[in-house]
Parts: sequence; C-alpha cells; structure tokens
Amino acid sequence: MHILDARQFSAEWLQDTLFPLADTMRSIHQLGDSRVLSGKRLFYLFYQASTRTRLSFESAMTLLGGTVSGLEPYREERDDESLEDRIRVLSCYDYDAILLRYHEEGGAARAAKVSGVPVINAGDGPGQHPTQALLDAYTIRRELGRLEDLDVALVGDLTHERTVNSLAHILAKFPNIRLHFVSPTTLAIRAELRDELTAANVEFDETVDLSAVAPNVDVVYLTRAHTERMVMAQRYNAADETYRIDAAALESMRPNAVVLHPLPRGPELDSSLDSDPRIACFRQAANGLFVRMALLSLLATGQS
Amino acid sequence: MHILDARQFSAEWLQDTLFPLADTMRSIHQLGDSRVLSGKRLFYLFYQASTRTRLSFESAMTLLGGTVSGLEPYREERDDESLEDRIRVLSCYDYDAILLRYHEEGGAARAAKVSGVPVINAGDGPGQHPTQALLDAYTIRRELGRLEDLDVALVGDLTHERTVNSLAHILAKFPNIRLHFVSPTTLAIRAELRDELTAANVEFDETVDLSAVAPNVDVVYLTRAHTERMVMAQRYNAADETYRIDAAALESMRPNAVVLHPLPRGPELDSSLDSDPRIACFRQAANGLFVRMALLSLLATGQS
Amino acid sequence: MHILDARQFSAEWLQDTLFPLADTMRSIHQLGDSRVLSGKRLFYLFYQASTRTRLSFESAMTLLGGTVSGLEPYREERDDESLEDRIRVLSCYDYDAILLRYHEEGGAARAAKVSGVPVINAGDGPGQHPTQALLDAYTIRRELGRLEDLDVALVGDLTHERTVNSLAHILAKFPNIRLHFVSPTTLAIRAELRDELTAANVEFDETVDLSAVAPNVDVVYLTRAHTERMVMAQRYNAADETYRIDAAALESMRPNAVVLHPLPRGPELDSSLDSDPRIACFRQAANGLFVRMALLSLLATGQS
Repeated sequence: MHILDARQFSAEWLQDTLFPLADTMRSIHQLGDSRVLSGKRLFYLFYQASTRTRLSFESAMTLLGGTVSGLEPYREERDDESLEDRIRVLSCYDYDAILLRYHEEGGAARAAKVSGVPVINAGDGPGQHPTQALLDAYTIRRELGRLEDLDVALVGDLTHERTVNSLAHILAKFPNIRLHFVSPTTLAIRAELRDELTAANVEFDETVDLSAVAPNVDVVYLTRAHTERMVMAQRYNAADETYRIDAAALESMRPNAVVLHPLPRGPELDSSLDSDPRIACFRQAANGLFVRMALLSLLATGQS
Repeated sequence: MHILDARQFSAEWLQDTLFPLADTMRSIHQLGDSRVLSGKRLFYLFYQASTRTRLSFESAMTLLGGTVSGLEPYREERDDESLEDRIRVLSCYDYDAILLRYHEEGGAARAAKVSGVPVINAGDGPGQHPTQALLDAYTIRRELGRLEDLDVALVGDLTHERTVNSLAHILAKFPNIRLHFVSPTTLAIRAELRDELTAANVEFDETVDLSAVAPNVDVVYLTRAHTERMVMAQRYNAADETYRIDAAALESMRPNAVVLHPLPRGPELDSSLDSDPRIACFRQAANGLFVRMALLSLLATGQS
Repeated sequence: MHILDARQFSAEWLQDTLFPLADTMRSIHQLGDSRVLSGKRLFYLFYQASTRTRLSFESAMTLLGGTVSGLEPYREERDDESLEDRIRVLSCYDYDAILLRYHEEGGAARAAKVSGVPVINAGDGPGQHPTQALLDAYTIRRELGRLEDLDVALVGDLTHERTVNSLAHILAKFPNIRLHFVSPTTLAIRAELRDELTAANVEFDETVDLSAVAPNVDVVYLTRAHTERMVMAQRYNAADETYRIDAAALESMRPNAVVLHPLPRGPELDSSLDSDPRIACFRQAANGLFVRMALLSLLATGQS
C-alpha cells in the first residue's frame, strides 16, 4: 500500500480502521509502552523544505521504537540523480517506507511506480498532502464528535494550498458536508476539484470574504495569508475581503466551532487568541502524531 | 527544571549532585552498561551553528540509550515560524527535552515560558552557555582537585564570549576565587558581570596582557583570539598585549596549572604544545560528555 | 584497523574473510535477525557531499542495530577547526568508528594518525574510495562467480574517478586479470597506477573508444560521462570516441558480461536498458549494504 492521494481513502476505512487505530496510539503512547516499530526504518526524501511533517513522522516513528533517516536534495548544490533512480537505490537499502515530498505534482505516483517499498506522499507541489488531510479529518471528528452534517470554511490560497485540496477530497466522502471556499478570486479552487465536488453532489460555494462566512460554520480551516501570492491578490482586490481570524471574527463564531490551521501561522491567526478553546491548531498538531503512528504501523504490518 | 542560566546553580548542587553524578556516568560508561535513557528523545533546535555542543549532547544521549533529532532554522531559506510556536509544536510532539541555541540573549527564557518540556540553554547570543560552564567547572575540579582558592585567568573577547560569562558566574559561587580577566580594553567584561562580582565580594582584576598573568594562575581559560572583533581590537592596541599561550608562556606557567579552551581553537593555542600535560582542552571535551550525561539523566528522571 | 586504501587488502582476506562475511550478512538480514551492532555508534564526517555512501553505511549500521550521526563541514559557512582537532574531539566522544570523506588526497591517513577509533576512508579527493572498490569486487564475484581470469573495462575520467583507481588496485591482486582503461587521452589513468600495475605484472591497455572494447570484456565498469571534465575532453577529441553503453553497445556485449556503475548515472547508461539482466548497477548498490555490514561488524568486533 502506498499513500499517495487523499481520494484513495474511503469514509469507512477512516472511521473503522484509521481513526480507531489513532485512538489506540494515543492510549498506547500515554501508557508509555509502544515499541511495535522496533527495527523498522523510515526514510524521508524531501525535494522541498518541511518541518512539521518531518518532525511529526519522525516522532511517530521513534515513539514506536523505529528509526528515521533522510535526504533533502533541495539542500544540495546540484541534484545529480533522477527521482526514479533515487527510489530504486533506496529500495536496495531496504527501508520499510519512504516519505516523499516533491516539488511537482505527480512525484509520489512516479516514485510508487518504481519503489519496492511503500511510498507516503508528504506533499507533491500544489497537488496533494494526504496525511495532513487525514489528521485534519481526525481532528474535526475529535473536536466536534462527527464528520457528517458540517459546514466547513476553507480559507486562503486555494489554488496552491495542497492541504486544503486534500482535505476537501476527504470531507467530500462524508454525508451532508457543506464546503465554503474563501479566497481571492484569482486564487480560487482548481477546476478539477470543482468538477469532482459537483459530480459527487457535494454542496459548496465560493466567496472572497471570511467575515461573512465565519458566523455560520462549524470549522474555519485557515492557511497562510501572508504568502507572496496572497499578499499580491489582496493588494488588487476590494478592501472588504478578509482571510484571517481576529478577535472580532472569533467573537462572531459559534461557541462550539473550531479554528484549524496546519501551521506555520502568520498574522491570519494571532497567538493572542490562543487562550480561546476554539483555537485548536496545537491539538491538531498533536493529533498529527497519533494519525501518523497509526499510518506507519499499518504500513509496517502490511495492513491497509 | 530548565537549564537556562549559569547563575541558577548553587555550589552545593554542583558538588553534591551534578559532579558525583558525572563521575558515576564516567564509571557506568566505562563499564559499557548504560541504557537509562532508553526510549527518551532529545530535540535540538539551533538558530546558530553548533558542532561540539550538538555532538556532545548527542553522544551523551545515545550512549545512554536515548535518541536525538533536531532542526536548524538558520539553514532554512526563510524562517517562517516564531520561536514560541516552534516550541509549542515540539511540546505537542512529546520530546523529553529541547536543547536550544538562540542568536539573541533571552531566547532560552522565552522558550521556557511556553514549553511543556525542559529547555536546555545551549547558548543564547552573547548571553549564557550554562552547560559549557558546568563542564568547565567540572574539569577544573578534576584537574586541580578543588573549586576554591583558585586564580583563574579568563582570556579573549570577554564582551561577547558567553562561555566566559557563564563560567565566571559559576566560579563566583565558590570561596576564595580570584578572577583575572584578560582582554583588549574594547572587549572587556560586561558591566552587569562586573557589578555582580563586586556585589558578591569576588576578587577580580582586568588587564590587557596575558603574559603578565599566566605565571601566577592555576587556570588559563583561553577563547578564540582570531575572531574578527579580536583581530580588529588588537590592531588598534599596544603591541605588548597577548591573548595566546605559546611555548614561552607555557614555560612561565606553574607546573600544576592547566590551560582550558572550549574549542575550536585557533593560533591562540597551537597543537604543537599538545604533548604538555597542562594542555587540558581535550580532557575538557571528554568531560563534557559525562557532565551532559549527568544533566540529561537528571532531566529525564525529573530530579534537579 | 583503519580502512584507508584499497591496496591494504589482500586477495586472501577478501576471499576468506570479507566476502564470506558479506554473504552471511545477506543471510542474517534475510532472516531479519541482526542486532550485532546494538549500542555501537558510527560517525560520518563529510567534507564533500555524499549520498549513496552515507545511506549505504547508515543502512548497514542501523540494520545491525547500531546508530549513526554526523557532521558535514562543507555545509557550514566557515570551517573553523582543523581536520586533526575534529578527529581528536570525536575520539573524546567515543564513537566506535569514523567514516570520513575528505576533499583532498591523504585526508584519511591524516585522520588515522590522530584518531583513537577506526577511520574508514569514504573517499579522499581523487585518491581512494576503498569500500566502493570492495563492494565492486564482491559484485563481480557474485555476478560472474570468480575474481580471476577476467577482462574488465574501466571507463570515464580515469584521472579523477577514485572508485576506478581503488577498484584497479583491488583487481590487480587477483591472477589473470586484464584491465582495459577507456578514457579521453587527457583523462587517462595516473602515472602512479600505471607504474604499480607494470610492477605487479598486471596486463592492461588504454584506449579512447569503448565500442571497440565492449564486445570483448566480462565487465564494463562505467562512471559518469557528463562531468564538466568529461564533456570538455570529448569536445576536443575525435568523434568516434564513446564512453557510454547504449542499446547497440549492449547488443555487442557477451551474453554473460555485466555492466557496473557506482551511481549516480547520467546519459552513459540510460534507464531504458535496465530490463537487460546484464545491467547490474542496482544489484551492485544492494551488495554495498552487505559488504558494509561486514566491514562494520569486523571493525566493531576488533577483527580485521
């Protein structure tokens, strides 16, 4: 089994396999007794920088007794080997799984084609970031108790933020989901996602202003509002657009709603708001650990 | 317990807790039987380059059966997350301690404020480097048999060398210590340290010439004399200043004195002198291992 | 025992000690039961980039239960410590072996002089790369069943490719070896190697054209043909020179010959040929793991 695309997971698999296992990982970890990956070896191959994804997987692996090493070709002066040859060599060295971040869409699929061991897509350009989406979905279920009948606002550069793309694919698998995409018009969701949601009969709308949406949703999923593209898009757009949660927006939100953010965050979610229990981004980060422990133990035991 | 500032340690704690434990670590290690940190995980977060500090802690941790991973934001193209958020996320990932090197004074204290796990200050700009000071003090005690009634020369850029700053704080806690600060006048010790030593009734003097001091001390603590600031300072100062130990200076020293250096060294301590048993800098490096093993095992067991 | 120079190994040691042990490692590994290096620590010190060598040793070490850490001075803004001092400090930290890649010939020998622990030469400038040569020899023996009575073509920049240099030294120790060096005239083998082969009565010739040699050899050992030096050399030379294996060249080769390549490869060995069983470069990479497992276990147990 490879983990390549958020679309590969069924709602049933999430609810009956992955999430219960993540809950188990949480318990096992709290018991301090978890060496099920002893002797197993994860290799990360990153063509783009990553911090949280690396550390989260690294922690998941080492907390279960496994080891981690890696290579970051983007740090090298020149990249003298094709992706395929790298994967072939890593297969020779007998790692138990390869965690791949690639700078272009489709990198994970190319790697899976020549790999002798499971490939985990840790982001491929503007494409997918399926394990982030899995932990996001797990967080929503933990925070709100359900993954159906939800209004979810997805906010930011929706053309290029792969986490949003992957999460929308996951949420679309659950009943009565209403997605509210909030972005500058020049950074709207991709046609491909729009078509898929339409074909799947998922309710969704698109808007430029978060403040109009925030009061009516169960989840606000923020992404970085200070990237170059976002800054540029806002400069040319109307003044009443907003892509951040400040004290006023938080005040307007439902008392049991949650604000998620894949981190790192910028001005779109100021740390002065952290004491509000609806700001769930660090609980979300902690959940990442348990979901990745679950995924790694599934891969290592050959289940799927 | 965090390790943030050399001033936090009492003379009693050093003599009754840390140093005996470091001795035990030395014995345990020589017996080749030491897995007391098995399953424990150290994370290093370095905003400035470090070699010896990282490798010394890494060795201490792995020799005791623990594991180490880290992040070096200074290597990244851009640093997209605040120190506080980084520490919050690392706390989510459940490391057992965070070893922090920061480029500005006060970084370790800021981190400790938001951290759920112990923070170890591995240097914060020109501020402190407390674990280096602890190993320096341990080395002096091992080499000379005592930590009181000593003449110690501290040499170099005393404004910016945090190891010297931290060591002076530690030595000031012991009786009958006489500190001799040797530096260009433009790179003298900081007013803060001068005030504290005065308040604590510690005898000290300041001079520009090591050769006048070397014959009369028990310890010469050298630091780098080839930094830009030092080179610049010497260019504008009198010709009879010296900040290095050469064969003549060594000849002038007491037969049972020692020369320490935190390394890396430059022309201020030429390797041609290494065969003289008074050159203790590599024994000092080895001691670093045992002191850090002691510190890590104290942190991991929650003692202090 | 240090591993410094391909010339240090006898044919007997290879055949009676190293190769059988590598075979054992292959079996042990396939049994999934191999913690003989538990608690042992390898340190890599790289003054030049390396990917395959690092990952291969890292895998060998961790598959046998040991741990690995390292330092890459070439990544640092400035290198502030001499090679000798670095090795002295690493000796203090009690690693079990130091894997050294240095940018100048003789680095490994300098390190061995001051090291308290075994040094493994992982390449010293244009000098040697002995462990690559050992795995190359092991691969030839596995692929062809023998290490004597062989025609071997060594192809590429023979002045600077240290793997070729080291392999020629190893092969020269076996009877009835005929070496065919194929390179642009400006990048021919070094006088030193030529003299040694002559003194050892090893048959060899030198040519500029691989296509004339390929049909008549048991082994074609390719190296990178797209380096700056190679590209430059070919630009000024005759058109009928070739340093690559394409479909036509492969067609001309003996049915039981093999093509080796230390990787990474460029246009000199296109991946479209990989399905031909004579292309052995990934089996060669896998063998690297077993040979390095054997070397590490020999060093750790103090045998040689």
